[in-house]
Amino acid sequence: MPRDGRRNRERILDAAESLIIDGGYSATSLDAIIAAAGTSKGAFFHHFGSKAELADALVERYADADVGQLRAALASVGEQADAGARLLAFLDWFIAGADELMGEQSSCLYIAVLVERELVGAGTAQPVRRAVMEWRGAVADLVRRADAERGERGAVALSADDLADHLFVTFEGAFLLARATGDASHMRRQLATLRALVAAWLA
Amino acid sequence: MPRDGRRNRERILDAAESLIIDGGYSATSLDAIIAAAGTSKGAFFHHFGSKAELADALVERYADADVGQLRAALASVGEQADAGARLLAFLDWFIAGADELMGEQSSCLYIAVLVERELVGAGTAQPVRRAVMEWRGAVADLVRRADAERGERGAVALSADDLADHLFVTFEGAFLLARATGDASHMRRQLATLRALVAAWLA
Repeated sequence: MPRDGRRNRERILDAAESLIIDGGYSATSLDAIIAAAGTSKGAFFHHFGSKAELADALVERYADADVGQLRAALASVGEQADAGARLLAFLDWFIAGADELMGEQSSCLYIAVLVERELVGAGTAQPVRRAVMEWRGAVADLVRRADAERGERGAVALSADDLADHLFVTFEGAFLLARATGDASHMRRQLATLRALVAAWLA
Repeated sequence: MPRDGRRNRERILDAAESLIIDGGYSATSLDAIIAAAGTSKGAFFHHFGSKAELADALVERYADADVGQLRAALASVGEQADAGARLLAFLDWFIAGADELMGEQSSCLYIAVLVERELVGAGTAQPVRRAVMEWRGAVADLVRRADAERGERGAVALSADDLADHLFVTFEGAFLLARATGDASHMRRQLATLRALVAAWLA
């Protein structure tokens, strides 16, 4: 255990993440997670005190990766001089990755946590809120710069914070639309729809 | 039972809907539903063969009410001559009702069903898919008429079906954003953001 304990912990987190994203939190039993991770109950409880503790670690890890995606997208558009072009290139980065994302996961861990008020009340959704705030801050900054640049063109006023949040809304809503229709291409298409609307707003 | 059997069935559905929207499907026990409905196990099984059968009836009823909202919104804007104004007035109808909606329910039954793949696989999400198709058909028609009317103005092309789906995406994503942040006003603000983007697209 000491030598590959860390690897075992990651394997449990990986198995749990996949099962919970697919089937929901309460619908996924600890036994199913332990079986999918190819480990034992003893090994599980060596790493996590309870299923709830596993959930906390899972959401923490997922939110970190989510904020990592935000930073990667920001870094990829850092060199664009034009603020409007930078905002659109930022959205393009997610459109380009949408099909791969949907090949890797059938939904979003955030949804599985947020749908259960008891988990939210216990603080398990705290990293989701933190990630939402990080995204809002960074994307609203892109929006504000693009808005300042366009000056008096266009008459439609928008809250930069709300438009920034609309990216989170589009991601989460598109995961659900894909699940409802069985068509994973909705993620790419919904992000492209948001991009087209933002382009119209900037024009 | 015969005389107010129907009322008892509705009471069970109401209690279950509220508990499941709040806490999730698998996280809500049958005992909790029976207690909240103020009924007995015997009365429950008089109306529903199982919890899964209750879920089917619940989603069916919820989707019917959802399509009813679509029809009410369409009826309210039927008299607008200008197709672009009609599309915007259609969105205004939902913005005007957003705070009341969030006062009545903390999330959406669709999310509680879609998050559990086993329920989706068993066909419980079938009415969700049907509702999505009804919304898509009606909203895409509004979008197409508005798009035809604007003629060559504006250079940004959009899929009418995808923009129609974006209303579903905005509703579901905003429910999750409200849950993540604890701020119910996000529903109104996200719908208003979509409305502003559509207005910019039409301008």
